[in-house]
Amino acid sequence: MKLIKKICLLGLMLFTVSGTAFAEVSEESAYIFNTFSFLVHGFLVMLMALGFTCLEAGLVRTKNTATICLKNVGLYSLAGIMFYLVGYGFMYNEVNGFIGQPTLWNPEAEVSSADGYSKMSDWFFQMVFCATTMSIISGTVAERIKLLPFFIFAIVLTGFIYPIQASWVWGGGFLSEMGFSDFAGSTLVHSVGGWAALTGAIIIGPRLGKYASNGSVIAIPGSNLPLATIGTFILWFGWFGFNGGSQLALGSAADAAAMANVYVNTNMAAAGGLVAAMILASILYGKADLSLALNGALAGLVSITAGPDVATPLQAIIIGAVGGVLCTLAIPLLDKLKIDDVVGAISVHLVAGIWGTLVVGIPGLGTLAADFMTQLIGVVTIGVFVVVASSIVWLILKGVLGLRPTEEEEMSGLDVSELGMEAYPEFRN
Amino acid sequence: MKLIKKICLLGLMLFTVSGTAFAEVSEESAYIFNTFSFLVHGFLVMLMALGFTCLEAGLVRTKNTATICLKNVGLYSLAGIMFYLVGYGFMYNEVNGFIGQPTLWNPEAEVSSADGYSKMSDWFFQMVFCATTMSIISGTVAERIKLLPFFIFAIVLTGFIYPIQASWVWGGGFLSEMGFSDFAGSTLVHSVGGWAALTGAIIIGPRLGKYASNGSVIAIPGSNLPLATIGTFILWFGWFGFNGGSQLALGSAADAAAMANVYVNTNMAAAGGLVAAMILASILYGKADLSLALNGALAGLVSITAGPDVATPLQAIIIGAVGGVLCTLAIPLLDKLKIDDVVGAISVHLVAGIWGTLVVGIPGLGTLAADFMTQLIGVVTIGVFVVVASSIVWLILKGVLGLRPTEEEEMSGLDVSELGMEAYPEFRN
Amino acid sequence: MKLIKKICLLGLMLFTVSGTAFAEVSEESAYIFNTFSFLVHGFLVMLMALGFTCLEAGLVRTKNTATICLKNVGLYSLAGIMFYLVGYGFMYNEVNGFIGQPTLWNPEAEVSSADGYSKMSDWFFQMVFCATTMSIISGTVAERIKLLPFFIFAIVLTGFIYPIQASWVWGGGFLSEMGFSDFAGSTLVHSVGGWAALTGAIIIGPRLGKYASNGSVIAIPGSNLPLATIGTFILWFGWFGFNGGSQLALGSAADAAAMANVYVNTNMAAAGGLVAAMILASILYGKADLSLALNGALAGLVSITAGPDVATPLQAIIIGAVGGVLCTLAIPLLDKLKIDDVVGAISVHLVAGIWGTLVVGIPGLGTLAADFMTQLIGVVTIGVFVVVASSIVWLILKGVLGLRPTEEEEMSGLDVSELGMEAYPEFRN
Repeated sequence: MKLIKKICLLGLMLFTVSGTAFAEVSEESAYIFNTFSFLVHGFLVMLMALGFTCLEAGLVRTKNTATICLKNVGLYSLAGIMFYLVGYGFMYNEVNGFIGQPTLWNPEAEVSSADGYSKMSDWFFQMVFCATTMSIISGTVAERIKLLPFFIFAIVLTGFIYPIQASWVWGGGFLSEMGFSDFAGSTLVHSVGGWAALTGAIIIGPRLGKYASNGSVIAIPGSNLPLATIGTFILWFGWFGFNGGSQLALGSAADAAAMANVYVNTNMAAAGGLVAAMILASILYGKADLSLALNGALAGLVSITAGPDVATPLQAIIIGAVGGVLCTLAIPLLDKLKIDDVVGAISVHLVAGIWGTLVVGIPGLGTLAADFMTQLIGVVTIGVFVVVASSIVWLILKGVLGLRPTEEEEMSGLDVSELGMEAYPEFRN
Repeated sequence: MKLIKKICLLGLMLFTVSGTAFAEVSEESAYIFNTFSFLVHGFLVMLMALGFTCLEAGLVRTKNTATICLKNVGLYSLAGIMFYLVGYGFMYNEVNGFIGQPTLWNPEAEVSSADGYSKMSDWFFQMVFCATTMSIISGTVAERIKLLPFFIFAIVLTGFIYPIQASWVWGGGFLSEMGFSDFAGSTLVHSVGGWAALTGAIIIGPRLGKYASNGSVIAIPGSNLPLATIGTFILWFGWFGFNGGSQLALGSAADAAAMANVYVNTNMAAAGGLVAAMILASILYGKADLSLALNGALAGLVSITAGPDVATPLQAIIIGAVGGVLCTLAIPLLDKLKIDDVVGAISVHLVAGIWGTLVVGIPGLGTLAADFMTQLIGVVTIGVFVVVASSIVWLILKGVLGLRPTEEEEMSGLDVSELGMEAYPEFRN
Repeated sequence: MKLIKKICLLGLMLFTVSGTAFAEVSEESAYIFNTFSFLVHGFLVMLMALGFTCLEAGLVRTKNTATICLKNVGLYSLAGIMFYLVGYGFMYNEVNGFIGQPTLWNPEAEVSSADGYSKMSDWFFQMVFCATTMSIISGTVAERIKLLPFFIFAIVLTGFIYPIQASWVWGGGFLSEMGFSDFAGSTLVHSVGGWAALTGAIIIGPRLGKYASNGSVIAIPGSNLPLATIGTFILWFGWFGFNGGSQLALGSAADAAAMANVYVNTNMAAAGGLVAAMILASILYGKADLSLALNGALAGLVSITAGPDVATPLQAIIIGAVGGVLCTLAIPLLDKLKIDDVVGAISVHLVAGIWGTLVVGIPGLGTLAADFMTQLIGVVTIGVFVVVASSIVWLILKGVLGLRPTEEEEMSGLDVSELGMEAYPEFRN
C-alpha cells in the first residue's frame, strides 16, 4: 500500500510540473476543450468590433456618426472575407520565414482528434484578430476620410499587411525563430494598427479647424460620452477573449490555470491603467477626465497584451498603470505635432503597444521574460514594415481616388455627403 | 510492434470517419459539454432580445422609443412564461405528427448522464428561440400598435403558433418525417416571425403619413442610427449562439468541429450580406446606406441559418450576399405595396428566410443538401399555417380591443399615450 | 448477460443519485470544466458593470451623465485593485469566524488537478461580485456626490466592508456555521449594496429640487430610457453568470444539471418580476411604466439569487413576481420618507434582497429550504454591520472632505464641476 501511495505522489508531482504527465484528459476531450475555447474567446473578440464602433461613434461629432458606424461594420465584414480569401494563407500556410502562401482556405472535412483542435475554430479566432487591427485605424482617421478609400485600405491591410507581418511571429517566421515574444499582440495587432493609423493621420492631415492658424489646438469634444464608455467596457470585456484565448489551448489543467492567470492580469492592467490615467489627468488638468480615463483603461489592456501569461497581478497593475500614464502624456504630444487622432488610438495602441512589448523583455518580470533586444528588434522591424507599406497604400489612394471629401462636405459632415442621412435626425444640435 | 501501429492507425481512421468510434469522451463528460453548450449558446441567443431592442429603438422615432423598449422586454418575459406553461409541451411532448401535448413543464430532478444533456439546458435554449420569433414582429408593427393587443399577440404566438409549427420539424412531426431540413430556423423562426409581421403590417395598416395621398412614399428616418448599429452587432454576436448551439451537442470532436464550421459560415454569410447590400445600395441610390447595410448583414445571417452546417465558407459568403441583395430589393417593393415595415423585418426575416431554406435544397451545396421540393413544401406549409393563424389573432384583437391608438395619440407618439413618459425628455426634438 | 445488465442498471442508479458515483469525469477534466466555468461566468458578471453604467447613465439627467460613467468605470477598477490588495484575504484567508487575514494575494504557480479548479479563476469570479456590490450604490447617490469621496467610499467598501461580511458566509465564518444560506448573494451582495446605498442616501440628502417645500415629490425623469433598457438587459444577461457560476463547479453531470436549473430559474424570476411590476404599475397609475418594469425585472433577479438552485421554475416566477411587486411599492414609499434614490436601487437590491433571502427559509420551497429564523438572523446581522460601518465611512467623508458639491455646482451639473465636460455637448437640452 505504501508503494502505491508513493507512486501516486510521484504521479501528482509529475502532473504538477508538466500539467499533462497523467494525460488524464482524453485526446478527444482535449480537442473539444481547445475548439470550444477558440469559439468562446473568438466571439468575445468579435464583440470588440462593436466596442470600437461605440467608442468611435461616441467620440466623433454627430455629423459623422453614421459614417463611422458604417466604416466599422464594413471593415469587420471585409476583414473576414479578405482573411478567408488570402490573409490566412499569407499568415499560416507554409510560411518561408517572411511570408506564407495564399490559398483559398478550405480545411479538409475530416476531423481527427489528433489535430488537437478544429482548424475552423482557430481560423475564426485568428480572423477576429485581423479585424481588430483595422478597427484601431478607423478611429484615428475618422471625420475626414471618404468611405471608398477607407474600405480599400481595409482590404489591403486585412488581406496583406496584417497577415504578412503576423506570419513573422505567429506563423513561425523569422521573428519567431529569433525568440521575439508577443503573447496576444501588443505589437502584432495593436502597434500595427497604431502605425497604420499614424501614417494615415499624417498623410490625410488634420480635420478642418482642429489646429488654428496661430498654432493653438481646438478641442473638438466627442458627441456622446456614454457611448464611448459603453465601447470601452465592451472592449475590456472582449479582451478576456483576446488575451485569454491566446493561450490557444484549454485541453489540460495547466492550460486552464494559465488562462485564468491571463484573465486576472488582463483585468488588473486595465484597472491600473484607468486609475493611473485618472489621477494623472487630475494632476495635469485639475479635474478628472472621462475620455482620458477610458483611454487609460484601454492603454492598460494594450500594455499587458504581450505578456499576460508571465506577469503577476501586481506587475500587471503596474504595467497597465505605466501604459495609462504614457497614453495620457502622448495625447497632448501628438496634438503638439499637429497629428490629429480623433479618438486617441495612436496613444493607446501604438505607444502602449510598444511599451507592452518591451516590458516583456525586462529581466525580473514574472518567470519567462524574453530578451529585451529581441523585443526591440521585433518592434522596430514590424514598425518599419507597416509604416512603409501603409504609407504606400495611403499615398496611392490619395493620388488615385483622393482621401478627403471637399471642404464643404467635411464641414457639413460625412453623414450627409457619403450617406445622405443623419445619425440623430430628430435631435437638434 | 508493427501490428500495434497498424491497429492504432486503423483506430485513428475509424475515429476520423465517425468522430466517435473511439468513444474517448466519457458519457459524463459528454453530458457536461452538451449541457454547457446549451447554456453558453442560450445566453448568446438571449442577448439577441437586446439586439432587437436596440435595432428597433434606433429605427423608430423618439416619440415611440420608450414604448418599443417596453414591448421588447415585455415580449421576452412573456415568451419565457408561455413557453414554460404550454409552449414546450406543444413543441416536444409526445408530438403526434402535428402537435404535442401541453403540460406544465417540470423535468424530473434525477440526473442521468445517459440522457446526454440536461433537459433544463435544452429548455433554456429552445425558449430563447421562441422569444426571438416574437422579437422579429415588434419591429415591423412598431409606432402604431397599442401595448395590450401587442402583448396578447405575443402570448398567443409564443404559447401556441410558434411551438405548434416548430413541432412539425424539431418536435419530430410530419415535416421532419418528410425530410424537411432547417438547421437553426430560417423558416421555423425567421420566416414565421416574418409571416406574422406581414399579416400584422397589412391588418394594422401603415403609420399615419407614411404614404401620401398621391401614392408617394414618405421616408421616416430612424432616430438613433448608432443604436441601430449596436443592435445589428449584438444580433450578429448572438447568432453564433443561434446557429452554433443548434448543433445541439458538443460531446464529441465531430460535434465541436461541426460547430466551428457553423460559426465560420455564420460570420461569412453576414459579411457577404453586408457587403452586397452596401454595394447594391450604392449602385441603386448613388450612395452607401447604413440602414440597408445593417439589414444586409442580418439578411445574410437569416439566409445561412437553414444550412450553416452544410455550406463551405465560400458558399456561405455567396448565400449571404444573395440574401443581402434580396433584402435590399424587397424593402422598396414592400413600400410600393404600401406595406409599412418600420425596421425592414419582413425583408430580412421572411424574404431571406425563404431563400435560406430553399438554398439548402439546391443540389451541389456542401455535402448534405436536402430535397428542393421538400424544402418548398415546408416553406409553404408553415407559411400558410402562420398566415392563417396570425391573421385570425390580429383580426380578433382588432375587433375586440382595437389595435391602433387614436390618430391624435399616434401623432403625439405612443410614449405619451401608452406610458405617459418620454424616452429622451431633455433632448429637444 | 442478465447479471451484467443488472450491474449496469445499479451503476446508473448510483450515478443518478450521487451524480459522480461513476467518477466518469477525470480529475483533470473536472479541473478544466470548473475553471472554465469560473472564467465564462466571471466575464458575464464583469459585464454587469456595464449594465449598471447604462442603467444609471440612462436614469440620471444629461448634466450628470459623464460623471456617473466615470464613477462606474472607476469603481470597477478600484474594486479589482482593493480586492487584490486586501479584500480576498479578508474574505477567504484563514477566516476565524468573523474575519480573514489580508495578504497580498498571490496563488502559488503550481497547478494540481487535485485542487479541483484554478484559484486564479475563482479569484476572478469573486472579484466581480465585490465590484457588483459597489455598482449598486452608485446609482442611488448619483447626481449629488463628488467624485473623490465616492471613490474613497468605493475603496473602503470593496476592500473592507464587503469582504468582511462575505467571510461570515462564503468564507466559512459564523453565519455559514449557523446554516445561513445565500446561494449567489441576495444578501451578501445585493442587500449589502442596498444598505450602503440607503445610509448614503440619508446622509448625503436628496437632490436639490427633489422634494418641494410643501412636501410634494418632484419627478425627475431619466434622460435616456433606451440606455436604461440596455442596462437592464445586460444585467439580466450577466445574471446568468452571477447565479449560474455560483454553482462553483461544472465538473460533474450533477453540477451541469444544477447549473441549468439555476439558469432557467434566473430567467423565470426576471420575467415574473417584470410582468408583475408592469401589471401593478398599470393598476396603480393607469399606465404601464418602462422604468418600473425594468426595475421589476431586476427585483425578480435579486429575489431569486439566494435560492435559484432550490426553486422550481414555477416557484421562480412567483418569487420574482413578488419581488417585482415589493419593489414597485417600495419606490413611492421611499419618496414619502424623502429618501432620494435616483435609480431605485434600494427598492431593487435591498427590499428584494431581503425577500429573496427569507423566502429560502419558507418550508415547502423546492427541496432544500433553509431555516427561516437563521435566514432572518443573517439578514439582520449583516444589515446592522453594513449600516453601522457604511454610516461611519459616509460621516467621516462628510466631515473631512464634504460629500456634496456646492448648490451652484449641483444645479449646473457635476459633469461641468467635476469633469469640465459634457456628456452630450452637441445636443440641445
